[in-house]
Amino acid sequence: MTHQTAFAALDAAFPGRIERGEAVRAQHGAGDSWHPAALPDAVFMAQSTEEVAQAVKLCAAHGCPIVPFGAGSCIEGQVNATQGGLCIDLSQMDKLLRVSPEDMDCTVQAGLTRQALNEELRATGLFLPIDIGAHATLGGMASTRASGTMTVRHGTMADLVMGLTVVLPDGQIVQTGGRARKSSSGYDLTHLFIGAEGTLGIITELTLRLSGIPETAKAGLYSFPTIEAATQTVVEALQFGLCLNRIELMDALQVKAINAYNKTELPDQPTLLVDLAGSEQQVDTDRDTFDALASENGAELHPVNTPEDYSKVWALRHSALYAARGLRPGCKSLSTDVCVPVSELPRILAETGADLDAEGIIAPMHGHVGDGNFHLVMLFDDGDAEEKARVQAAHGRLVERALAMGGTATGEHGVGLGKKKLHGGRARRGAGAYENAQARGGPGQSDEPGQDFRSLVADDLRVCA
Amino acid sequence: MTHQTAFAALDAAFPGRIERGEAVRAQHGAGDSWHPAALPDAVFMAQSTEEVAQAVKLCAAHGCPIVPFGAGSCIEGQVNATQGGLCIDLSQMDKLLRVSPEDMDCTVQAGLTRQALNEELRATGLFLPIDIGAHATLGGMASTRASGTMTVRHGTMADLVMGLTVVLPDGQIVQTGGRARKSSSGYDLTHLFIGAEGTLGIITELTLRLSGIPETAKAGLYSFPTIEAATQTVVEALQFGLCLNRIELMDALQVKAINAYNKTELPDQPTLLVDLAGSEQQVDTDRDTFDALASENGAELHPVNTPEDYSKVWALRHSALYAARGLRPGCKSLSTDVCVPVSELPRILAETGADLDAEGIIAPMHGHVGDGNFHLVMLFDDGDAEEKARVQAAHGRLVERALAMGGTATGEHGVGLGKKKLHGGRARRGAGAYENAQARGGPGQSDEPGQDFRSLVADDLRVCA
Repeated sequence: MTHQTAFAALDAAFPGRIERGEAVRAQHGAGDSWHPAALPDAVFMAQSTEEVAQAVKLCAAHGCPIVPFGAGSCIEGQVNATQGGLCIDLSQMDKLLRVSPEDMDCTVQAGLTRQALNEELRATGLFLPIDIGAHATLGGMASTRASGTMTVRHGTMADLVMGLTVVLPDGQIVQTGGRARKSSSGYDLTHLFIGAEGTLGIITELTLRLSGIPETAKAGLYSFPTIEAATQTVVEALQFGLCLNRIELMDALQVKAINAYNKTELPDQPTLLVDLAGSEQQVDTDRDTFDALASENGAELHPVNTPEDYSKVWALRHSALYAARGLRPGCKSLSTDVCVPVSELPRILAETGADLDAEGIIAPMHGHVGDGNFHLVMLFDDGDAEEKARVQAAHGRLVERALAMGGTATGEHGVGLGKKKLHGGRARRGAGAYENAQARGGPGQSDEPGQDFRSLVADDLRVCA
Repeated sequence: MTHQTAFAALDAAFPGRIERGEAVRAQHGAGDSWHPAALPDAVFMAQSTEEVAQAVKLCAAHGCPIVPFGAGSCIEGQVNATQGGLCIDLSQMDKLLRVSPEDMDCTVQAGLTRQALNEELRATGLFLPIDIGAHATLGGMASTRASGTMTVRHGTMADLVMGLTVVLPDGQIVQTGGRARKSSSGYDLTHLFIGAEGTLGIITELTLRLSGIPETAKAGLYSFPTIEAATQTVVEALQFGLCLNRIELMDALQVKAINAYNKTELPDQPTLLVDLAGSEQQVDTDRDTFDALASENGAELHPVNTPEDYSKVWALRHSALYAARGLRPGCKSLSTDVCVPVSELPRILAETGADLDAEGIIAPMHGHVGDGNFHLVMLFDDGDAEEKARVQAAHGRLVERALAMGGTATGEHGVGLGKKKLHGGRARRGAGAYENAQARGGPGQSDEPGQDFRSLVADDLRVCA
């Protein structure tokens, strides 16, 4: 146990509540990722913003690392406590504090999950239009700038957070933004905390924009001869401005995995799955248009007519990760995501596919193709160091390819520990200008002390001259 | 002439191009605002990012203030050179550098205007869906986080800028963001520069998201018995998710002014003007729905059937500012804007109306009611110091009212000189935490040296504990 003076102070402030048991620490030492677990020295279940602030103040005074924790659903090792310290778990701060149906907004505590929020909102006819695979907290989703399948229509968490309550590295509590739909009143501090993965402060409350639940939604399912044909259909549909809610692409290998996992018989070809939402009439018209565009690009159309068909089709999509893992039972999976301009998708998928084939790596692909964002689930034997290194090297080349095409190293998973190294080369030149702004000794954590800020500037900043 | 060493260096670097003539300085010393002009010592028409960087480096080395200048259409005194120095005019950097129809994005130089961009894009079927009253440059629009009438559908400049090239206060050139539709790769530096009004750097290039030009657009025009009835209609329409492109509200006085200016005979009542855009069928269906909602809330419907009617109705709206000024010819006008949650509109308009009546101030109102954003054009005799002070005091109370309702001091005009004082009281407590991050001696300008950062933190940051 390190950081003894910090824990003595924390024990005095929160008698009996600084938990040191092996089990609770183990629950907090890893997300849903391939990264080796790294346990915090202790866990504190915070009940309020004020408690978070008090704990942060004590940790700051004693130089003790802090890791904020929500649902632990992150997949880039964001919660792994590589330097030990205190894990501040916000999952019990799970209240819907306020909802305004007429303004279509609400304020929540950071530990509330997306699913629980939408459950609570149901009677209002409103929902938070973010659909991610994980069972995540809203604070965590803001901290990693989460997005998911509905981004093509509704945007990411960055577009839906109107204001925040944040505990700063020194324990100060601040509020940013507000309830106005827009503002040109000075620096956009709200967006500075979104995606900062806790390194600039701990988000404890969020004010969120909501949407009306659409009158109806219908799906479409299409098998394409090539990735190019599928992508071309997506480009045309986006230009038409159809009422698309989700546009998901799966490659042939992913479809094969889904067939095996679900005992279905879809053709082993690139497959598009779309969701259209709006009024009955609009959805029908727009699905006809999408059908026509897909046909012109050589697609085979699979009928999705009843509500049961609709549920079945989306259940297939949601099985993608488990189906992928099923291709090589007993293996670990490195789930990664990059995002490129939509027009570059065929090229990056072709080049990456050739690379993976050459390396003999099994890695099915599914993605939110309307945004140019896709996931690879790279399977490997955790006991085979050589294979693991080959998978990591191929992963690095994928990121480099995305960056070279004007894309980003991660569309929605975040940097965490997993992508710090991949950002390093590009970040180094960018770091100088911001060195003074580094968040020192505050929230967030790192395996290189004091490097948090630089690792997160990453590919978003490029120094040109 | 102050800053002599700076200008000697600038003259040497750009022979004959550092302009000191009275006429050119006068053209750059004020925007379209009521603030007294303040001329820069010299003007430099930059031709490239590299030239901007070189000029900034020289100014930084010699402690010379810099004011970036686009079209000079700002209305809060953002370009007034209260400390003299060098005005860097970017209006000749007006190229469309790249457009990708399949990705629906483009890259432009900061001096290109919105109108010129949309003209150049016409053949692609795409446009930048930002409709503001001013003839502004895109760099300026990003710097003040501009929005306008289509925000209810398409968002603000903050939602449409994907990446930036920026010259930092020390002359470094950096790029932020990229061409990916979304990213969770570290700090959101793009949004930090948007709305910073040049105080953190000079934006020289922007990558922008575009939209498809809709198949058709139709308008609706409605007279309401009360502001409440109009607002209620808007709330219901937003919850229905109708294909609304613009929702504009004018109060009875604004309508009276428009009637006088255009020789029309609309009832002197709160009036809604809506624009629906999409497919022919969707627009017709949704306008029928809007008509029904408006009728249920007591509205009188004015027919807007032909394309000529459509143009006429929007021409009326676009005449609002000139019509307002026509209510008191020869007077100056203080144009201001605040933004509140939509549900608070009736209350803030009632309280503000009572305040203005009590003070005898003529100030018609029009606004982007779908966002809760509205403008007052406050008319006053510039030679009457007492009246001017009364108008400014009423303006201050309007801002306080908006902030108290969870709104913001400015929805789309920015802080500039005009709202610095109004922010001061709230900003002071927020300043401490960020003092080290102040942009010292760099771009932007202020009437209190070194205070730029603090004045712009403004109402977006509230220190709670």
